[in-house]
Amino acid sequence: MAAVADCPLCDADGGVLVVRTPPLRLIRAQEAGFPGFYRVVWHGHVAEFTDLAAPQRALCMEAVAQVEVAMRRHLSPDKVNLAALGNQVPHLHWHVIARYRWDSHFPAPVWAAAQRPAPADRLAAVEAALPAMEQELAETLRRLASGHAGT
Amino acid sequence: MAAVADCPLCDADGGVLVVRTPPLRLIRAQEAGFPGFYRVVWHGHVAEFTDLAAPQRALCMEAVAQVEVAMRRHLSPDKVNLAALGNQVPHLHWHVIARYRWDSHFPAPVWAAAQRPAPADRLAAVEAALPAMEQELAETLRRLASGHAGT
Repeated sequence: MAAVADCPLCDADGGVLVVRTPPLRLIRAQEAGFPGFYRVVWHGHVAEFTDLAAPQRALCMEAVAQVEVAMRRHLSPDKVNLAALGNQVPHLHWHVIARYRWDSHFPAPVWAAAQRPAPADRLAAVEAALPAMEQELAETLRRLASGHAGT
Repeated sequence: MAAVADCPLCDADGGVLVVRTPPLRLIRAQEAGFPGFYRVVWHGHVAEFTDLAAPQRALCMEAVAQVEVAMRRHLSPDKVNLAALGNQVPHLHWHVIARYRWDSHFPAPVWAAAQRPAPADRLAAVEAALPAMEQELAETLRRLASGHAGT
């Protein structure tokens, strides 16, 4: 699918690249206060989840699910938040966010107003766990994509 | 799966019931300012999407996708928002929300601060399109569940 001019997710990765597979990539979002904030970005420029065919949707959501699984194991979040919004950037991307009772917004969504500062030591502990998780996820998502070659 | 005490989505439908199938239900959320706001609720009390097995996840997301498809056809939204958050009610439910450039929050998420009042005539036009969409969706989701009996 052709890239679309002036689309930030056609022009660039959109964050720190964790892994790129043929249909999609995983990036770390670098959102302040949320070290465990990742996005699964479909490379092709489609706006809505249902612009994908059913096998593509299945692959995309299995990638999202595998990010959640790794996040739960490595980061022990109190909750995982999943969302495909795209109001600002209508190029399909799934937010996968590790949430904690101590984080700046909990239990509100990350898009609501902050409720408190997040403790620096807690944020640092999550950050310290990211490299091992990302290494594992790069392998998991490559394996997933190769099992769906041609999707 | 046993119901959990004091869980609002174990105790009640959680909104206006559109259809109930063996594993999940569709409800209209009745959120002020967002007539096209629905939730796909998994009946069993699980907190995270990946608490479901892969075939259950696939069925759940196909239900979400079918709600989006019907929404796009009947309500012509500018964008559809999908989200499974559950910070407040950790019982798996997917928000499926028809968004419009004219709505009170666009392009911000519905959980952010409002930016303007939504025009009453536009809201009424969306509301008028809901019954036909819901009737179609009830049939679609029943068919989907019967095709996945035993999932």
